Amino acid sequence: MININANRKTDLIKLNKPVYIISSAAVGGGKEKEGPLGEYFDITDRDVKFGTKTFEAGESEMQRVALNTALKKAKTHHKELEAILAGDLLNQCVSSTYGLIEFGAPFIGLFGACSTMAECLALGSLLIDGGHFRKVGAVTSSHFCAAERQFRFPLEYGGQRAPTAQWTVTGSGAVILGGADSSGNSPKITEVMFGRMIDKGITDIQNMGAAMAPAAVDTILKYFRETDANPADFDIIATGDLGIEGKRITENLLLSEGCDIREKYNDCGLMIYDCEKQDAHAGGSGCGCSASVLCGYFMRKFMLGEYKNILLVCTGALMSPGSVMQGNSIPGIAHLVRIEK
Amino acid sequence: MININANRKTDLIKLNKPVYIISSAAVGGGKEKEGPLGEYFDITDRDVKFGTKTFEAGESEMQRVALNTALKKAKTHHKELEAILAGDLLNQCVSSTYGLIEFGAPFIGLFGACSTMAECLALGSLLIDGGHFRKVGAVTSSHFCAAERQFRFPLEYGGQRAPTAQWTVTGSGAVILGGADSSGNSPKITEVMFGRMIDKGITDIQNMGAAMAPAAVDTILKYFRETDANPADFDIIATGDLGIEGKRITENLLLSEGCDIREKYNDCGLMIYDCEKQDAHAGGSGCGCSASVLCGYFMRKFMLGEYKNILLVCTGALMSPGSVMQGNSIPGIAHLVRIEK
Repeated sequence: MININANRKTDLIKLNKPVYIISSAAVGGGKEKEGPLGEYFDITDRDVKFGTKTFEAGESEMQRVALNTALKKAKTHHKELEAILAGDLLNQCVSSTYGLIEFGAPFIGLFGACSTMAECLALGSLLIDGGHFRKVGAVTSSHFCAAERQFRFPLEYGGQRAPTAQWTVTGSGAVILGGADSSGNSPKITEVMFGRMIDKGITDIQNMGAAMAPAAVDTILKYFRETDANPADFDIIATGDLGIEGKRITENLLLSEGCDIREKYNDCGLMIYDCEKQDAHAGGSGCGCSASVLCGYFMRKFMLGEYKNILLVCTGALMSPGSVMQGNSIPGIAHLVRIEK
Repeated sequence: MININANRKTDLIKLNKPVYIISSAAVGGGKEKEGPLGEYFDITDRDVKFGTKTFEAGESEMQRVALNTALKKAKTHHKELEAILAGDLLNQCVSSTYGLIEFGAPFIGLFGACSTMAECLALGSLLIDGGHFRKVGAVTSSHFCAAERQFRFPLEYGGQRAPTAQWTVTGSGAVILGGADSSGNSPKITEVMFGRMIDKGITDIQNMGAAMAPAAVDTILKYFRETDANPADFDIIATGDLGIEGKRITENLLLSEGCDIREKYNDCGLMIYDCEKQDAHAGGSGCGCSASVLCGYFMRKFMLGEYKNILLVCTGALMSPGSVMQGNSIPGIAHLVRIEK
């Protein structure tokens, strides 16, 4: 096997052989069910605690249900999973811990803030492409109520939200990645790119879109400069959760570099809610945003044959409430995966 | 290339070709300098803020200095790093973010609590072994003062510590991993194993050793059952930060399974401090514990020819203060790397 990356001088990594998305599942809350993509979720529950006693345990439960559903669709026993790659927004990533422990698989915990799904998919693909694993799970989640009280205010406080603030998606997405495609019908990951941390000095915790947009621009620009691909090649180029403000900044910064993706570009955070009607302000955010849009809507589009080629660029804001209170600005990161069929 | 893992039925992953630890660097605080391994640190500073304004920024600074020092030793420009794998204990892993952003490398954020260094090394090795990367950095850290106020009490409170409580190491370790060894003298990683999450119902936040020991036992037992190796083959079998209590539990649980590692076994948390004289109670802990012992002491032993073969089993407690307050027990995890020369 000649490794096509042996002398790569790019951040882009082309897989030697495709890695298949054997199955996926999206779990969401009531607001997500009511949104424009509601019908694409596998399971939704209006009970924000998902039958548990706390928001946090509810988030774990979403991960458990999402992975279980994806395993069932793939007709895969959980013992066949050689590893689970997962992460979330809660301190010390406890949603993933408590949600996934019962699967008993070797566990690779990741933290990429809201970019974690692309990080899971990229790493999982490389581990399979490298020949070390045959089948792995990739799972992330976020939960509005758990995130609000951890990052901003307890819900009971009724804090006012800025127009640029985003609404953390209550949702989870799970993917089963494999080196072989028994169905002959699975979309495949063909290219991945790990983003660099970019900090343009944004300190406004109510404007994560602005903080993350420069990272998205960095990754997208690198992608189109390092490949022969054109925006027109894709059915959709989707960022993770930049929202109205971040999407606009991304479009404008890319345009100023001569890269026009507008015709194919959308943001998962804008797709998942009807921002005006659903009072979601600048759009959805959170690890569960791009994860559930990918695992629900995008995968359905692939299955229906309506999508053949997408570029998913999940974006994350690498901050903590403490780091912002200490006066640090908010670096962003954007990891990329190309999915084709 | 025939991949030796193509049909593996084990959790253990043997690398197809060795991945070299080209260089390493250990940074620590004053207490670590005064400990039995003090002389093996590359850089120590009695100023717990490492010249910055906060404990948290000081922790980031340790990561920056550690990676910089490792790069210098490896005569490697930071632009040669094709990725940095890193993580820490602070909420949303911000020590790694702010400490490593200036290196400008593609960034892969990990969370494995105190097991993060082995997770970084294992993943980094697989990415190089798979042919996707040639040179990556692996960095972790922890900081006593930052961890105390995040996980337990602000220092000013002067909270009493239980005898089983551990002392979070103020330290950072950085490793440069590469597929080629220009010096001809570098230790190499030959086997890795990702641990499974194990929860035996421990809820005492002042006894992390007991929470993590069953995970260490699970990984160590699997290792010796899945290989022909014997404890006698190693110069040292080192767990990450189980402390007095956790080490004893690990020894006893392993003995009850017929696995006697006592002659070669030690715990980084017990090596880094003179627990009695230094008032470190049950021993050191934190991502920086096993990382700095590896990058300082163990690597020096390899360089001196005194070590030829070690088994590093970094242990992590996958909890948050919130998860414990909500009544959850504390799952542990233990990732393993074998390093040889």
